[in-house]
Amino acid sequence: MFELLAEKKVMRDPIHEYIHIQYKVIWDSIDSPEFQRLRRIHQLGPTFQVYHTAEHSRFSHSLGVYEIVRRMVEEVEGVKEHLSEFERVAVMLAGLLHDLGHGPFSHAFELIQNHHHEYYTGQILLGESKIHQILADADVNLPKAIADIIAHRHPNKLLTQMISGQLDADRMDYLLRDAYFTGTSYGQFDLERILRTLRVADDKLVVKESGIHTVEDYIMARYHMYWQVYYHPVSRSFEAVLTSFFRRMKDLYHNNPISLAGYDMFTPFLRDDIVSIEDYVAMDEPAFMYGMSMCKKHPDKILSDLARRLLTRDLFGYLDIDNEKTIVEMKKKVEACGFDSEYYLTVDRAKQQPYQPYRGKESSLIWVMLKDGRIRELSDVSVIVQAIVKGEDKSDRKMFFPKTCIEVSNEQ
Amino acid sequence: MFELLAEKKVMRDPIHEYIHIQYKVIWDSIDSPEFQRLRRIHQLGPTFQVYHTAEHSRFSHSLGVYEIVRRMVEEVEGVKEHLSEFERVAVMLAGLLHDLGHGPFSHAFELIQNHHHEYYTGQILLGESKIHQILADADVNLPKAIADIIAHRHPNKLLTQMISGQLDADRMDYLLRDAYFTGTSYGQFDLERILRTLRVADDKLVVKESGIHTVEDYIMARYHMYWQVYYHPVSRSFEAVLTSFFRRMKDLYHNNPISLAGYDMFTPFLRDDIVSIEDYVAMDEPAFMYGMSMCKKHPDKILSDLARRLLTRDLFGYLDIDNEKTIVEMKKKVEACGFDSEYYLTVDRAKQQPYQPYRGKESSLIWVMLKDGRIRELSDVSVIVQAIVKGEDKSDRKMFFPKTCIEVSNEQ
Amino acid sequence: MFELLAEKKVMRDPIHEYIHIQYKVIWDSIDSPEFQRLRRIHQLGPTFQVYHTAEHSRFSHSLGVYEIVRRMVEEVEGVKEHLSEFERVAVMLAGLLHDLGHGPFSHAFELIQNHHHEYYTGQILLGESKIHQILADADVNLPKAIADIIAHRHPNKLLTQMISGQLDADRMDYLLRDAYFTGTSYGQFDLERILRTLRVADDKLVVKESGIHTVEDYIMARYHMYWQVYYHPVSRSFEAVLTSFFRRMKDLYHNNPISLAGYDMFTPFLRDDIVSIEDYVAMDEPAFMYGMSMCKKHPDKILSDLARRLLTRDLFGYLDIDNEKTIVEMKKKVEACGFDSEYYLTVDRAKQQPYQPYRGKESSLIWVMLKDGRIRELSDVSVIVQAIVKGEDKSDRKMFFPKTCIEVSNEQ
Amino acid sequence: MFELLAEKKVMRDPIHEYIHIQYKVIWDSIDSPEFQRLRRIHQLGPTFQVYHTAEHSRFSHSLGVYEIVRRMVEEVEGVKEHLSEFERVAVMLAGLLHDLGHGPFSHAFELIQNHHHEYYTGQILLGESKIHQILADADVNLPKAIADIIAHRHPNKLLTQMISGQLDADRMDYLLRDAYFTGTSYGQFDLERILRTLRVADDKLVVKESGIHTVEDYIMARYHMYWQVYYHPVSRSFEAVLTSFFRRMKDLYHNNPISLAGYDMFTPFLRDDIVSIEDYVAMDEPAFMYGMSMCKKHPDKILSDLARRLLTRDLFGYLDIDNEKTIVEMKKKVEACGFDSEYYLTVDRAKQQPYQPYRGKESSLIWVMLKDGRIRELSDVSVIVQAIVKGEDKSDRKMFFPKTCIEVSNEQ
Repeated sequence: MFELLAEKKVMRDPIHEYIHIQYKVIWDSIDSPEFQRLRRIHQLGPTFQVYHTAEHSRFSHSLGVYEIVRRMVEEVEGVKEHLSEFERVAVMLAGLLHDLGHGPFSHAFELIQNHHHEYYTGQILLGESKIHQILADADVNLPKAIADIIAHRHPNKLLTQMISGQLDADRMDYLLRDAYFTGTSYGQFDLERILRTLRVADDKLVVKESGIHTVEDYIMARYHMYWQVYYHPVSRSFEAVLTSFFRRMKDLYHNNPISLAGYDMFTPFLRDDIVSIEDYVAMDEPAFMYGMSMCKKHPDKILSDLARRLLTRDLFGYLDIDNEKTIVEMKKKVEACGFDSEYYLTVDRAKQQPYQPYRGKESSLIWVMLKDGRIRELSDVSVIVQAIVKGEDKSDRKMFFPKTCIEVSNEQ
Repeated sequence: MFELLAEKKVMRDPIHEYIHIQYKVIWDSIDSPEFQRLRRIHQLGPTFQVYHTAEHSRFSHSLGVYEIVRRMVEEVEGVKEHLSEFERVAVMLAGLLHDLGHGPFSHAFELIQNHHHEYYTGQILLGESKIHQILADADVNLPKAIADIIAHRHPNKLLTQMISGQLDADRMDYLLRDAYFTGTSYGQFDLERILRTLRVADDKLVVKESGIHTVEDYIMARYHMYWQVYYHPVSRSFEAVLTSFFRRMKDLYHNNPISLAGYDMFTPFLRDDIVSIEDYVAMDEPAFMYGMSMCKKHPDKILSDLARRLLTRDLFGYLDIDNEKTIVEMKKKVEACGFDSEYYLTVDRAKQQPYQPYRGKESSLIWVMLKDGRIRELSDVSVIVQAIVKGEDKSDRKMFFPKTCIEVSNEQ
Repeated sequence: MFELLAEKKVMRDPIHEYIHIQYKVIWDSIDSPEFQRLRRIHQLGPTFQVYHTAEHSRFSHSLGVYEIVRRMVEEVEGVKEHLSEFERVAVMLAGLLHDLGHGPFSHAFELIQNHHHEYYTGQILLGESKIHQILADADVNLPKAIADIIAHRHPNKLLTQMISGQLDADRMDYLLRDAYFTGTSYGQFDLERILRTLRVADDKLVVKESGIHTVEDYIMARYHMYWQVYYHPVSRSFEAVLTSFFRRMKDLYHNNPISLAGYDMFTPFLRDDIVSIEDYVAMDEPAFMYGMSMCKKHPDKILSDLARRLLTRDLFGYLDIDNEKTIVEMKKKVEACGFDSEYYLTVDRAKQQPYQPYRGKESSLIWVMLKDGRIRELSDVSVIVQAIVKGEDKSDRKMFFPKTCIEVSNEQ
Repeated sequence: MFELLAEKKVMRDPIHEYIHIQYKVIWDSIDSPEFQRLRRIHQLGPTFQVYHTAEHSRFSHSLGVYEIVRRMVEEVEGVKEHLSEFERVAVMLAGLLHDLGHGPFSHAFELIQNHHHEYYTGQILLGESKIHQILADADVNLPKAIADIIAHRHPNKLLTQMISGQLDADRMDYLLRDAYFTGTSYGQFDLERILRTLRVADDKLVVKESGIHTVEDYIMARYHMYWQVYYHPVSRSFEAVLTSFFRRMKDLYHNNPISLAGYDMFTPFLRDDIVSIEDYVAMDEPAFMYGMSMCKKHPDKILSDLARRLLTRDLFGYLDIDNEKTIVEMKKKVEACGFDSEYYLTVDRAKQQPYQPYRGKESSLIWVMLKDGRIRELSDVSVIVQAIVKGEDKSDRKMFFPKTCIEVSNEQ
């Protein structure tokens, strides 16, 4: 039995009206320093460079994921009955804590690290941390159960499905939240109706047939958010500069560690050692941005120029890549302008399928329960999803380089 | 030169914030009895039987279409330049007046008539009506120009495209409005962005490439509104009963006209003559509903039973049709219960493709202007739309019959 | 024990997302002909003449009141405990059915009747009606209990307070709903937070001190809705013409009943007898509007002119009344134009106080529970409400007359 | 003549749909490092500690103020005519740049400085900065004109009124924006209607009489936002700890500057010299938060404890102050717990009047133009505002102290 709060707490939230908290261990987890740190990490990394109001944090998003899991657990017919109280609390906490290991601008930041953020989430949950202690005090088996759910290792697949399938609390919150905070309408779909049409069957979460349209709408919302927001070329340009910045810093350090003396926030990530939990947790966006503003004054011209670009939004321009030759030619132009193409020319590819029926485990697919009780995979029953899955993939490959090298008329 | 109002008028509207009116002829048209009559016709016919707040009228919708046309004319780059003042006023009025010929519950009502509502729209605009006089007083050529735009006969295809293409002011208003008034989120799309990305090229309205995602979102909004709202089986059940009601009334009249003496609102539509404009305009929902409540007391058992069903929402049940045999069997059951299957068993098919690239005239397609200036049809450039167009059609055939005949567990 | 539905029903609603129905007697009441009739009565009477989208019905509003009562009963701490199941079901039904006795354009319509709509609500609930039968079948004491709650006669004042105090489900729904459907923002307030801060103390509903701001906001919302929407001079002008129309019809009938032969929908209301439930229920807006369109062709010039004005929105103009002399002068002008001032000049006064602490019974006041548990009347603890209550009353007296008599530049 | 952009730029914004930019000097100002820095300052300082989604920046708000000024200048009847192009551009830029001098958590931060943020705004605009250069390049008189408007020194009072009266672009944007990002409904009012009813008369901005209700609504929105959001005791608690943190740091520095060696971001603000523009601009929230995380490890127990409290939201509890004795008693308790009351007990008073008719200059009042053209001050014509102005002031005095000293049951 987990201890309840004397009085149920609520937190106002624009997406869910209120976040409801009843268990003490959940309240205490929110107040842990490792979770409070997520206030200092932007949910969408560099996207606020394009959508200026995308300034929300992983903290808010994590509360939202928790709230959706809580509603699944308490409101979806069959879920409560399928789960023990321990499992219910564990999966709510897994929703809350699934992003614990994120660092600043994770996508680019992970390039200079040996591990992904998922690795650090596990480390923080299971290692020497305040949050570990809070969880273990509530139930000694809790930290591992949560880490297992997040890492897809938990034997009860229903729990994983709630946190990270293709119709999970994580995606549902971020689509709605990112749409709200960017001010676009693309990410909207009918969360209430999805929750109302979820059921448990065959030990998995399924959608009733009458909910198919809402799920199609959700799939399209995802598709549009990817192309309109997440893959916006200006965000990718910021990440291109950031990647070069990291690469340059790492190269400088490897050649001469002394050249980065005093840049204490970065050094744990430049060494080849494993980063300690303490150092990892200390790396938040303020640390990162302050470090970047220090780098602006660094004697290395490339490092300081890249830092200046990031701080003042003097980003790279971009062009679509038709074939490999285009890259070779651009490389020449970049160098002709006096830039080191190692750091001043980067290439990336954005690709996204709104729904992948053939990939991943069963627990990540979306399942539909027909009126007659049969259970089918989504693309088998949705004409729209089937059409999209069979359709040609949209993909987009771009190169990024200083605007002064070649005239381009990019969006803002 | 058309006369302007002394002061620009505005009308508050939940979809467009304000409807802006500057021309006297537009203000006067709104105040005409034929247009005011549209306040007394539900925009979505029987849908308020399912979505209880879908109580908005064709009057509101018509103002909304006008407002979108006005914005196209005044804000879309190139449109103003392509059109004379006469054409601009004519197309705004065409937007305002395009639904003038609608009767109550048009879809079903047209079954007992010899003409569609489009025919009556033309009759009212060109015949002896107050609105005709208002328009002709402003410019003698105006009534015909408006009727031509609405009937796709106008030589300037741009005008028709604004009113009735696949991306026109009519559909854009009704999707947003119907979504708002039903309280669903399906019909939402980003009207602002569509207007911002429209241009004129090759004498037609085109969307800039950067607007493709918004148009895809609009296509999906349409698709979902059809299946979730417009084709909702309970609405179709209401229409099924209504159709039988009309059929019965017509049959009674043909056998014995005296039996409908006193039901003056209906008789003009039961005779084989042409319905006069005056009689047509007099037929609004109050007339219709009052007539129906009179029919509830009619000595003919079938007519009075069908009227009672409509007034108190005692609608038919429904079942999917697998093959023709299902219908034959149901017919037997209906008759075994003592019902005349002529009126107590009806069949309908709902079918909708979100976008039809191969059908209709060039002016009804959606055109995209690529970054390099080339113009392509939407399904050529949108991976999503292409996938949908190639996908299997969703279609849905149902039969409707008294619930007491066979137990069915239909949605409310 | 009241019978539950096999499956909980929900109805989509833009104000409350969903209306939730669990009891069979409630579902059956919604399907009763007397309740379905409310679909055919506009919630805001003539307001759609000004705010063209205010086309929602008393049906939708009644569902909304029911939903708020349901949430009070199920979610507000202390309410469930204070009430028996019978009382809970009764008060939910009282919320649903409180407007049953409304006729078309009630405010004006009541002028030609001997009774207010409250009287008819009681008659329908307690008399020979389908709804009476449904309620009595569920529990023989139910009809009277519901009628008592609505008529403020029920011994348990908590029940009355939920339906008609100054912070009741009725007002809370109509403010939000009318704001939504007119498209204004004035009526908005935070219903969620009000529900969260309600408690039961001293056998009455009280608001926790932390909810005072939300209640102040609600009081202001009411105030603004009155002046911006409910008392809009164009609505009052429609009512002025309507009142004259009724008066003229009544005068004609009294002088010569034969002159209204064939106008069957009106005659029960013109006789001095009591109107039967059946006749009353038959009078809905379609009957009324169809009757009006018949009157447009009536040989009496005044009656037909007033009907025409109502149908085509050729309403009266209006002016503020400074003193009694203004009226006398206007009377002369109206008659000089050839109008009978008996029907072509009317006077009304709009007056509204956002909150009345000194009037009405204890159960209609708003009570606040301080942090220390003491209970105080709202204006004792809210600086804002106190200021408003002490402030000068806003009142507005106007006269209405044909626009052709005197030039006025009224809003639209 | 100011240079226009080749193509009008727009930025998506949830409050205004789009921010529209036409002038090159405005676009360049947005891209200046001093303006980009505002991305790194929270609009509501510590409020995100209570309303977790209040994570928006002064950057977004500044764009919003600019957009409202732009609309005033382009859409309000009379404004365009009253202003030269130079004045129009200057006032739009004043809207954009009015918050340039804000530092992190300004309210508390200003306590350790000798100047308010207004002073720094002037310094940055007129001194050696990139933004100064951009403005001066566009027109040598621009920097001073902008600084004058912001500092209320400009001879054309209309300009000042648009930026900082009691009904100005600044307040209108922040109420709407803060309401949106906190997820509360209190700050909402009808901006569209206010803009529609603004006029210029007597060389000042006035509201037409028909807009009074909207302005009353705006006044109440302000009132509620103050008490529900801006003066929330948890925000004030954060500021209480922050103030103690600053005070402690300053005391340490004055006693022994060496003890803060290495805390470079803070030292310019601890010295008694004037802070240079460069140092000031370098102080953003990342610098501040990183400095705070360094302080967490500082050997001084008080400084490190206060830093820890701020970083992990271990804030002070609070109690209302009844009289001076309460403070004396609390001081004893705090010291009895082993805390230095100099830093662990603070007192503050929140007080706000929704509208002040008697204070400030004429240009800060709200003026109403009656139907007959007379111009009156708002509280002379609004019954509601008059009532509020005459009512008793609401004020709230609290003390803040470590929760461990005395048990308090504060909101979250």
